[in-house]
Amino acid sequence: MITPQTLKGFRDFLPNEARKRNYVITKLKAVFESFGFEPLETPTLEYEEILAGKYGEEGEKLMYRFEDNGGRRVAMRYDQTVPLARVVAQYQNELTFPFKRYQIQPVWRADKPQKGRYREFMQCDIDTVGVEKGVSDAETVAVIAGGLTALGFTSYRILINDRSVFGTLPVEAITIIDKLKKIGEEGVVKELEEKGFTKKDFEMVKNASMPDSLKDIVSAAAKLGVNEKNLQFEPTLARGLDYYTGIIIEVEIPEYTVGSVGGGGRYDKLLNMFSSTPLPAIGFAYGFDRVIEAMDVLNLFPDEVTNATSQVLISIFSEETKKNSLEVAAKLREKGIKAELYLGEIKAKNPLEKQLKYAIAKNIPYLIVIGPNEAEKGEVNLKNLQTREQNQVSVEEAIAKLTS
Amino acid sequence: MITPQTLKGFRDFLPNEARKRNYVITKLKAVFESFGFEPLETPTLEYEEILAGKYGEEGEKLMYRFEDNGGRRVAMRYDQTVPLARVVAQYQNELTFPFKRYQIQPVWRADKPQKGRYREFMQCDIDTVGVEKGVSDAETVAVIAGGLTALGFTSYRILINDRSVFGTLPVEAITIIDKLKKIGEEGVVKELEEKGFTKKDFEMVKNASMPDSLKDIVSAAAKLGVNEKNLQFEPTLARGLDYYTGIIIEVEIPEYTVGSVGGGGRYDKLLNMFSSTPLPAIGFAYGFDRVIEAMDVLNLFPDEVTNATSQVLISIFSEETKKNSLEVAAKLREKGIKAELYLGEIKAKNPLEKQLKYAIAKNIPYLIVIGPNEAEKGEVNLKNLQTREQNQVSVEEAIAKLTS
Repeated sequence: MITPQTLKGFRDFLPNEARKRNYVITKLKAVFESFGFEPLETPTLEYEEILAGKYGEEGEKLMYRFEDNGGRRVAMRYDQTVPLARVVAQYQNELTFPFKRYQIQPVWRADKPQKGRYREFMQCDIDTVGVEKGVSDAETVAVIAGGLTALGFTSYRILINDRSVFGTLPVEAITIIDKLKKIGEEGVVKELEEKGFTKKDFEMVKNASMPDSLKDIVSAAAKLGVNEKNLQFEPTLARGLDYYTGIIIEVEIPEYTVGSVGGGGRYDKLLNMFSSTPLPAIGFAYGFDRVIEAMDVLNLFPDEVTNATSQVLISIFSEETKKNSLEVAAKLREKGIKAELYLGEIKAKNPLEKQLKYAIAKNIPYLIVIGPNEAEKGEVNLKNLQTREQNQVSVEEAIAKLTS
Repeated sequence: MITPQTLKGFRDFLPNEARKRNYVITKLKAVFESFGFEPLETPTLEYEEILAGKYGEEGEKLMYRFEDNGGRRVAMRYDQTVPLARVVAQYQNELTFPFKRYQIQPVWRADKPQKGRYREFMQCDIDTVGVEKGVSDAETVAVIAGGLTALGFTSYRILINDRSVFGTLPVEAITIIDKLKKIGEEGVVKELEEKGFTKKDFEMVKNASMPDSLKDIVSAAAKLGVNEKNLQFEPTLARGLDYYTGIIIEVEIPEYTVGSVGGGGRYDKLLNMFSSTPLPAIGFAYGFDRVIEAMDVLNLFPDEVTNATSQVLISIFSEETKKNSLEVAAKLREKGIKAELYLGEIKAKNPLEKQLKYAIAKNIPYLIVIGPNEAEKGEVNLKNLQTREQNQVSVEEAIAKLTS
């Protein structure tokens, strides 16, 4: 028999993890949609030529690509930005611009698996395409803050910078300055000097004051409800990339030290790989796995997510009272209660033992028992499995308790 | 420049389609969870040996497989049943049985693309693993009905049969009888006779009465709230497959004639490919794309799904009133209203023309205008873009209107 196992860097999400993922996706989608972002899905496989050459040397190495059964060269989604560029070019005449879309799909990179780095991982992007800097920049900051707030974060820091802060410094120097947090001031200056730059270049950036364009964004974001204490001007922030043309954004959670939980910025030229129409854009991506890890650190998942899906296990006491259990299950579900019916075999001797064990193993908070006495009166025995408190109550009272 | 295009058989889901998909998934998940089904996700790529040889000759031909960068033979998810079999074997000691999971992920098959057949398509499965026939069979019927009802279907027919109806007839004969709807009675008898069976074999099946096991399921399903008029005993139903060991299920929507919108049944031996522990199971899969097509036929998508995501477009009248628009957007969003702010350039001359066009193009039902007069009074002009009715109201009144 073949050993059941997964590929390195690939993960199964069993219910306890999958519930967390669903929760984060549901919360973020609601926020994205409250700002008018629309859902977009693109295929897992693209023609290789669509993705090839778009992700630098590293991308060429890490991309999953192969020849399909029809001899076509295909590649697996590597990020969600190149597919977005393809979509806005391919459906230019169908889409209404500014085009605001969110996209939450897995991507694949054949990277060396290590803690927090996977070969299949979810990306969670929002982008606004078709407008130059202005309200959309503030809206992006507001939707980022809205998402973090909806997930329960309060101490988050949205670091912002603007490409203009680096003036005429070449990418080589910017990349070094961007490493400030990793290698410290001395390290940055040393590396700069090795490459022929000066300490003054670094200080020019480090001591820069906030450009007017960022001040406008901060003031508009505040009107959109963003708490200014969550915004921080970070003049050395460059996010290692050279395609930002305006605001640059990175999000940190102080209690979560593994790294930033998202990043983005304005990139007015990047989307033109398949189209000569100007496609200025601003976008942001949450680091999905890191967001979940940070929520774990801060205990932000509510009980109904960390517990079982089911709010109550309805046991079956005997063949005679089974029909009562079924009817009660239907009534509870009708009221929106997540009511699980015990499905295992019912032993005549001590019928509840296994059922109680099942509820406890699955972390289900309540147990309903309908024995002959309860069945006769049309009532149920509702037991809180945490407090061990139990009461014989009417079905309506049980519903009231479970929906309170 | 490279032509922006997708591979044949692969689809982009632009917002209008993606919203429908999200709606169906959200509705079905809520029903699955109300029955205590838990989410499960498995990787897109598996070791080839996990999937190879599990899907017959056709599967061997249609599976996407390749050698990854590390020289491993890998294959893309072909269905969700083999991964489920792997998961229950691999995590036997971690999972609580009966294990009830739902799984909604894409699968890939290099089939010839044609109307309604794609190379990448969503599967939407529920399965209960670890119990033999009993309450779980009725629960499966009830969850199927619950899902269809939640989506707005009323005329659906859940066709049921039991493997025992075919008695000792060999698979060869069952497969012919299963074709009744396609080739008619005469066709079935002719094919049976060609293979050495008799008309009597067919009649034995066709005139069979409902076995007691199915009667029990029907009666329990009724107690779980299933309307018996939606259930139909169909003694010739076999679903072409030879792995069903008990109930066999197929769902039809009379108004949608392309084909069934889902199928399943009890399969007590299939999951034992990676484990010698008995793993009896019952499951069902909705045909995701067909469900959406049938809903389109019956007009079951509510307006907020077929329209834009946004309920209201908040226009920006001028640089002076911009801050009012931003503040109103924040207030509306706080109340759960999907409020989109216009992001395009604001022309001094006729500032609303382009904004109104945008709202109409995107099918957004309401427009809010805050001109100098409204700004001064702290009010807004709320315009219903369908009826053309407009009123100058307070922000609170606008919120009341938009949430009613």
